[in-house]
Amino acid sequence: MPPPYQRHVLVCTNRRPEGNPKGCCATKGSEAILDRLKGEAKSRGLTGPVRVGSSGCLDACAQGVSVVVYGAAEPPGGTWYGGVKLEDVPDILDQHLAGGRPVERLRMPAARTPAAKPER
Amino acid sequence: MPPPYQRHVLVCTNRRPEGNPKGCCATKGSEAILDRLKGEAKSRGLTGPVRVGSSGCLDACAQGVSVVVYGAAEPPGGTWYGGVKLEDVPDILDQHLAGGRPVERLRMPAARTPAAKPER
Repeated sequence: MPPPYQRHVLVCTNRRPEGNPKGCCATKGSEAILDRLKGEAKSRGLTGPVRVGSSGCLDACAQGVSVVVYGAAEPPGGTWYGGVKLEDVPDILDQHLAGGRPVERLRMPAARTPAAKPER
Repeated sequence: MPPPYQRHVLVCTNRRPEGNPKGCCATKGSEAILDRLKGEAKSRGLTGPVRVGSSGCLDACAQGVSVVVYGAAEPPGGTWYGGVKLEDVPDILDQHLAGGRPVERLRMPAARTPAAKPER
């Protein structure tokens, strides 16, 4: 299905050189999280209205693994998750992508405030 | 500035093996487009509320180079651009990222329909 998507999940897979003080999502396992989200979204028949893909740095490195969900069924500022682990994938799929209810415990603190009003 | 962003520009930099019938955005010059958007957004002082980054495949390969702009100041389904070329970067920066007016001639035909109503 072409865009726009109802829910467009972007998993940060940015990799920084080892020892970089910022850290990065890749060394925290983001690629495995992306693979599992993609695979299970497909096997549950969610793809089409739901798209799962990778993104470069989301500028929330300290809170990684960072995941943002944008799309027509999301608030314009997106739903931001931080500290995501492989074992969180079923809840993201069941509660959010299939059920439409964000996983509150995974929300990124810095992005918890309501998104600013559109300028136009 | 931490998320959420007012405008979050995602440029597809997906690269498929040469000869793949779908083609890909990388061979159409998406990496140079990303670099210029990033560099000029920074030099114009737009970064902070505006974030420019890469994404994996946006599933609009035939219409690449594909770019989507999500964020608190965008419609929830995002603003989708297709067939973006390096020479389009100044218009995206001036009209859209600085001026808040999407570049109509670049809109992706498949994504021109209004985004579906949120489910919740």
